[in-house]
Amino acid sequence: MTHSERLAALRAELAARDLDAFVVPLTDEHMSEYVGGYAQRLGWLTGFQGSAGTAVVLADKAAIFTDGRYTLQVREQVDGADWEYVEVPATSVADWLAANVGHCDVIGYDPWLHTATWAQATHKRLQGELAATLAAQADNPVDAVWTDRPVPSPAPMTVYDHPAAGRASAEKRAEIAEWLAAKRADALVLTALDSIAWLLNVRGGDVAHTPVALSYAVAHADGTLDLFVAPEKVGEPLRQHLGNAVRLHDRAAFAAPFFQSLAGKRVAVDPERAVSAIDALLAQAGATIVPLRDPVVLAKAIKHPAEIAGHRAAAIRDGAALTRFLRWAEETLPAGGETELSAAAKLLAFRRATGLHVDQSFDTISATGAHGAIPHYRVDEASNARIEPGQLFLIDSGGQYLDGTTDVTRVVPVGAPSPEMRDRFTRVLMGHIALATAVFPDGTCGAQIDAFARRPLWDAGLDFAHGTGHGIGSYLSVHEGPQRIAAPNYPGGASLEPLRAGMMLSNEPGYYKAGEYGIRIENLVLIEPREVAGGDPDRPMLGFETLTWAPIEARLIEAALLTAQEIAWLDAYHAQVLAKLAPALDAATQAWLVGKCRPLAWSVG
Amino acid sequence: MTHSERLAALRAELAARDLDAFVVPLTDEHMSEYVGGYAQRLGWLTGFQGSAGTAVVLADKAAIFTDGRYTLQVREQVDGADWEYVEVPATSVADWLAANVGHCDVIGYDPWLHTATWAQATHKRLQGELAATLAAQADNPVDAVWTDRPVPSPAPMTVYDHPAAGRASAEKRAEIAEWLAAKRADALVLTALDSIAWLLNVRGGDVAHTPVALSYAVAHADGTLDLFVAPEKVGEPLRQHLGNAVRLHDRAAFAAPFFQSLAGKRVAVDPERAVSAIDALLAQAGATIVPLRDPVVLAKAIKHPAEIAGHRAAAIRDGAALTRFLRWAEETLPAGGETELSAAAKLLAFRRATGLHVDQSFDTISATGAHGAIPHYRVDEASNARIEPGQLFLIDSGGQYLDGTTDVTRVVPVGAPSPEMRDRFTRVLMGHIALATAVFPDGTCGAQIDAFARRPLWDAGLDFAHGTGHGIGSYLSVHEGPQRIAAPNYPGGASLEPLRAGMMLSNEPGYYKAGEYGIRIENLVLIEPREVAGGDPDRPMLGFETLTWAPIEARLIEAALLTAQEIAWLDAYHAQVLAKLAPALDAATQAWLVGKCRPLAWSVG
Repeated sequence: MTHSERLAALRAELAARDLDAFVVPLTDEHMSEYVGGYAQRLGWLTGFQGSAGTAVVLADKAAIFTDGRYTLQVREQVDGADWEYVEVPATSVADWLAANVGHCDVIGYDPWLHTATWAQATHKRLQGELAATLAAQADNPVDAVWTDRPVPSPAPMTVYDHPAAGRASAEKRAEIAEWLAAKRADALVLTALDSIAWLLNVRGGDVAHTPVALSYAVAHADGTLDLFVAPEKVGEPLRQHLGNAVRLHDRAAFAAPFFQSLAGKRVAVDPERAVSAIDALLAQAGATIVPLRDPVVLAKAIKHPAEIAGHRAAAIRDGAALTRFLRWAEETLPAGGETELSAAAKLLAFRRATGLHVDQSFDTISATGAHGAIPHYRVDEASNARIEPGQLFLIDSGGQYLDGTTDVTRVVPVGAPSPEMRDRFTRVLMGHIALATAVFPDGTCGAQIDAFARRPLWDAGLDFAHGTGHGIGSYLSVHEGPQRIAAPNYPGGASLEPLRAGMMLSNEPGYYKAGEYGIRIENLVLIEPREVAGGDPDRPMLGFETLTWAPIEARLIEAALLTAQEIAWLDAYHAQVLAKLAPALDAATQAWLVGKCRPLAWSVG
Repeated sequence: MTHSERLAALRAELAARDLDAFVVPLTDEHMSEYVGGYAQRLGWLTGFQGSAGTAVVLADKAAIFTDGRYTLQVREQVDGADWEYVEVPATSVADWLAANVGHCDVIGYDPWLHTATWAQATHKRLQGELAATLAAQADNPVDAVWTDRPVPSPAPMTVYDHPAAGRASAEKRAEIAEWLAAKRADALVLTALDSIAWLLNVRGGDVAHTPVALSYAVAHADGTLDLFVAPEKVGEPLRQHLGNAVRLHDRAAFAAPFFQSLAGKRVAVDPERAVSAIDALLAQAGATIVPLRDPVVLAKAIKHPAEIAGHRAAAIRDGAALTRFLRWAEETLPAGGETELSAAAKLLAFRRATGLHVDQSFDTISATGAHGAIPHYRVDEASNARIEPGQLFLIDSGGQYLDGTTDVTRVVPVGAPSPEMRDRFTRVLMGHIALATAVFPDGTCGAQIDAFARRPLWDAGLDFAHGTGHGIGSYLSVHEGPQRIAAPNYPGGASLEPLRAGMMLSNEPGYYKAGEYGIRIENLVLIEPREVAGGDPDRPMLGFETLTWAPIEARLIEAALLTAQEIAWLDAYHAQVLAKLAPALDAATQAWLVGKCRPLAWSVG
């Protein structure tokens, strides 16, 4: 079936159900960002391969909603003859529905794929403006026409007993029980897969590159927990690890009969993370919904010293592998003959050679020339481009190691970069340094410091259309909340979360010239308390410690644009890169790295 | 009656009404920031003279809620024996109520002084956590015990036909009618006093220093408008000016019988600006409430070219008066003998000498030494301090002129400033310049650029506990929305509003050392489109044009901290100060100003 045929099949299904429209988000029953193949409905229907988007299908028109990261990509992957491209947040799905559906229309949605907050607000608006109705569908119409839909993965749920976990699950669960007591709630519904994995010290393999297992959990004030996971995923070691306080149920048992046991109870549910169907099940059972953020989210974001120590070890191992790749790229790419896929395979081989690489932490963005201007470009056999002299080659990648998850971006000039490329790269670097060196009061949120990374671009009338920093898990998801460095209206929000010591974030400003090249410089950073001599003693300050080690290409830097302080930062960074990575490198790569880490101050006098 | 006796009287009144608590905000029926004497309930009850705060009175305890601007002031003015000091937003009124009232308590509130949004959210929370009730009171219990409460002012509503108004009221009202049609609404309830004044091109004298008249308005889709204003305020010229499309009613007639005429209609009401009582009247009448922001707010914030031209003229006139004052201060203060009150009177005299000064735009903040550390310090006979050598004297003031409203802050060193004072002043100046020179994409909000003004302080472990910039009216309120430059969680919010060309804002970072001194450098700025050569043509950029002209004291500047670009900005600013103000000054003041505007670059080589 072509994508046009799939759209037609869905329309026929909607007509048979008397639906005037249907909303197809890219998520799963856990509101996950990355989802298993069985939940890739948006990609199946439209061809869109990005990690965030929504489709709306009407009888006579259809629209796909993506944000600034995917402006170019959606046009490459989704047929404009069938689909209208709509950019969020400028136009929300609700805005577009209000402008495009008819009076008294019925718009279907899958209550397992949307929050109750979204469903209620959208319904209220459509009802108010058009007397239209948002109607929950018991089964998803896409699934009815998706004949070769993959089954959910059979990967086991495994015990995560690495020292980097830091704390025993029983200790974490005791904290949740205390939290429930403080909130005067009887139980907590957990649906975020990484929350469940972190809380129980378990991992899985149901989502590509994110080691989580499809499951639900209900934690109780008495410290016990109901875990819903497919029985074929549960082996004896896991059963032993979970212990008696965790009652195991089939994932399919997360349904009305179980919810009856919550009748009359006060049940905490995260309005941003739990789907609408769960609110309905609780309401139907006669439970009182207490809308509170999943308490694991913040506990998980503030890393334990063992998680930080684990990450430091992973970062050096990963940085050494990336450095071997960067040397290979510098020596090999100018000759031609390599492609985006072959380069990505080479990097993967260097990571695997560490002996401790479990998986990539996401699909490597191996993007040369114009592909670099697509911030979340994903290379495949069809798009695979030859890496040519004169291009910038952007590589954004990460590894999953048992002791940590990495994420790093570097740009390699293939041959001599143009003066404009050097100007842009230097401005991105200035933004990266401005953020890396920022000192700010405890409680400052990411939205307040995001512009530090943009100002050198703004000064030149430029910007980049994505956030500057995201949280990252510990052998978990490469993107995690609640903190974020981004504009406050950035899709996905959360940039209003106060930043706290112990959180980890990416620092990744970029610049993208459509049709020509892309630039991004990404390191991970750890938020740490920062003593400032002579500062206000009543005003605790925070700062960033950079965690990622790999050389930043001097041939792309226009040193005349940098201040002495910026040059000093870069030189100090490279001194650390050399000191940390050299012991993990062969002599030839060590020698190469010495050259890459040569202080810029020496060149500019 | 002492403040303690007033509190006791209110408690007796609450007991008689079977209320366990009562909430006393500082606002009026229009959710005004500045209010007439009749609405100064918070000040009468507690002694607090700041412009923002709330009190909550329980039978056995009482709390006063203020934000960071008033941390010191509230302790000076309000008796800690009777009142607990609570800082918002760290602890909201709802947070404190939830922690301090008892199970099933009844908490009273005046529905004419709170939004429905606040009342509903607070009630829901108290109900959920404590089965407590928030109960609207038909008359305010404070008024029952406030025996000498002032009557509302009898000042007339007057015609504002100055050329700076720019557009006729009929034209503005036609736009509102179009807006109503677009929103499919039949009518719009306007309660913000400055919105009504701007829309009708009228002014008044019911609130000190803000030329507005107590009134309500209901605008209809047919272009007509019902205006509710006390009949004694309405003279024949006003009646003529308003014309036939405006129906006049007594302000007291804004009540149930009138609302019956809205039965069955869709009525737009601003959930942030209209009080809860209005929602109740509309619901009772059977109208459908359409919650939308008052459309005048944005229209008024984006200044008309005539409003901008008016402001430019007022700013030069006002800057010349301030410059005469600064010369007087430099020549007079070191000798001793002057006080905060005498200095404020001197400045007022210089403003009055312009011949066009209608009023101050707010109570002048004339603050020497430790008083300067109270950002919104208000001098009176009791607090009036002598200005002594070694102090910093901070003067924050503004004028109301028919062609514009001004607001400006300067600091005068009395004798030689300390190195610490110079360091702090220079950091505040660096923040001021960083904001003044910012270039940013159209649609950026104030929360994103606020930290530009703070970074030089953050770098030294310092900060200031107020916003960086507020909107300002055109011969209207010195504070107006919707735009604001502040942290996103700043009390009063609104810093998430996209900044747009034509908006005016203050740029006023500061630094405050409790018990010692305060620093603030405030100019007004206009947002303008900014062409950046070589910039992305698809990314329109904005920047600031500074509008305020008065010298910034070089003796407080540590030039070694400044970059060459910062010095160039300051020197260019001073060149403009001299060019614009000199023609309005006497020869001796001109000569003095030449010295004050001497380029810093000449001193630092």
